Amino acid sequence: MNETLLFVLLDLSGTFAFALSGATAARQRNLDLFGIGAVAFLVACGGGIMRDVCIGAIPPAGLSDWRYLAAAMAAVVATLGAYPLVVRLAYPVRFFDGLGMGFFAVAGAHKALEYGHNAEVAILLGVLTAVGGGVLRDVLLNRIPLILQKEIYASAALLGAIIEVGGERLGWSTQWVPWLGIVVSTGLRQLSLRYGWQLPRFTPPGAGERD
Amino acid sequence: MNETLLFVLLDLSGTFAFALSGATAARQRNLDLFGIGAVAFLVACGGGIMRDVCIGAIPPAGLSDWRYLAAAMAAVVATLGAYPLVVRLAYPVRFFDGLGMGFFAVAGAHKALEYGHNAEVAILLGVLTAVGGGVLRDVLLNRIPLILQKEIYASAALLGAIIEVGGERLGWSTQWVPWLGIVVSTGLRQLSLRYGWQLPRFTPPGAGERD
Amino acid sequence: MNETLLFVLLDLSGTFAFALSGATAARQRNLDLFGIGAVAFLVACGGGIMRDVCIGAIPPAGLSDWRYLAAAMAAVVATLGAYPLVVRLAYPVRFFDGLGMGFFAVAGAHKALEYGHNAEVAILLGVLTAVGGGVLRDVLLNRIPLILQKEIYASAALLGAIIEVGGERLGWSTQWVPWLGIVVSTGLRQLSLRYGWQLPRFTPPGAGERD
Repeated sequence: MNETLLFVLLDLSGTFAFALSGATAARQRNLDLFGIGAVAFLVACGGGIMRDVCIGAIPPAGLSDWRYLAAAMAAVVATLGAYPLVVRLAYPVRFFDGLGMGFFAVAGAHKALEYGHNAEVAILLGVLTAVGGGVLRDVLLNRIPLILQKEIYASAALLGAIIEVGGERLGWSTQWVPWLGIVVSTGLRQLSLRYGWQLPRFTPPGAGERD
Repeated sequence: MNETLLFVLLDLSGTFAFALSGATAARQRNLDLFGIGAVAFLVACGGGIMRDVCIGAIPPAGLSDWRYLAAAMAAVVATLGAYPLVVRLAYPVRFFDGLGMGFFAVAGAHKALEYGHNAEVAILLGVLTAVGGGVLRDVLLNRIPLILQKEIYASAALLGAIIEVGGERLGWSTQWVPWLGIVVSTGLRQLSLRYGWQLPRFTPPGAGERD
Repeated sequence: MNETLLFVLLDLSGTFAFALSGATAARQRNLDLFGIGAVAFLVACGGGIMRDVCIGAIPPAGLSDWRYLAAAMAAVVATLGAYPLVVRLAYPVRFFDGLGMGFFAVAGAHKALEYGHNAEVAILLGVLTAVGGGVLRDVLLNRIPLILQKEIYASAALLGAIIEVGGERLGWSTQWVPWLGIVVSTGLRQLSLRYGWQLPRFTPPGAGERD
């Protein structure tokens, strides 16, 4: 299998996994069929669309490339057709969700560099690609975005994007740098889930609000 | 009345109707004068601004064409000056809201095609134009977007956008294709309101969360 | 000190002050370290990023210019390292937040004019630059944006942007027009805080919902 095909397959797997998480969350909130489809599509493609708008990739690939839409809709069909199975598969779904996160962080950073932007843009947009869709899902479903409060997630995406951008800047082989980023970010995410790792947090004192 | 003038009038009517719905919702939430104006403008123009950013129409027409702003502000004046009337007119307001939705779906899809994008982009952005403003309103007012959970709304917009894009691609007359899209999407919306039509939804089992 | 340097310093002070407000709010909500950093960065740079996307300044300066990121991260360090002090300094923080708002309104409007857009675009985007970050903060933390409901804030930003755009259009000296805009908008904000000024609001009658 050549590299391009592998990248495409991984990208679509990530899209599929993210759409699965969106469709499951939307069904748990009792949205109708269109709502489930819309949330699934937004979770899978929202981060990439925001990235493309920021780097000047018009129109965004998530809107113009039918494969993204097809992968998201396949995930909706899978969620609705095999819901008991999906729920029982909680761990594999998490695994693919984490894999999608790692891949999107690396691929998002790579695309920003490809469009000629600097390292900071690439790293920030790598993170945006990986977490943007999940943030949209939580905002639409009216809750504080989970990635802001629980476990190591966005920080793992940050690490993956830094590895990709650092590797490309140092001229390391593009054969294995993306894989290193994916393995490290996804691995960190899976390990933090298994062992309950968290970033430090601070007990808020009773002090007053300012706004 | 020539076609261009008619389109402009319909577009501004849609803007006016959407702004009316935004101003009414904001006033019900007890926002101040500026808050009412801001929500009304966002509901009326937010979907179009997101579409324009995605198709590369910079600056977005909703920001640069004073008529959109004027229509939205006229709706605010109407809402505040004749609030008891607006509330009593619930059915006409809904009618214009649905008309605006249908027109925005068709006009949004048309504008994306005009900028040279493919059918998928046009259909997805037609829907975004029609529903984006309402989603912004609900997110800002801190509730789950109604279009995701109640009645046939976004799906009617989808149908209108598909008719417009399909008609243009098949080379059908631009004299009546937009009207067909508007009539079908608006009609479907009005009928679903009158008869309580809904898309299928699925009782969520008591099964566990994954996230 | 020459004008350019002064502008840069004020811009970074505004970024710092906004990031301080975001980090404080995020810590009060008990977010983890990454969540605090992300919210601080979004509050400080979110409005400017949305403006840049709308005027075609790709990539947005908030993503590509390291000084914005550095100022935001310095504010996070300050918030976490000296939290009791920050809380006690509530009034100075408010002062810088209001100063940042005034400067962003003027600078945002100026940048839109610089990119060749019309007065309406410049005024609307000046307001967006000044309030966009705060709206993102409140949406992410799942509450109705405060600027929509409390005190004179966005309306002060509107006034600052109008002064800047009006002044430039009338050919007034760019030596003092920006300062007039900053002083008026910031002053109005500070006075409204001290004296509890509010825009008019309307008691919602018990009348029915339409949506």
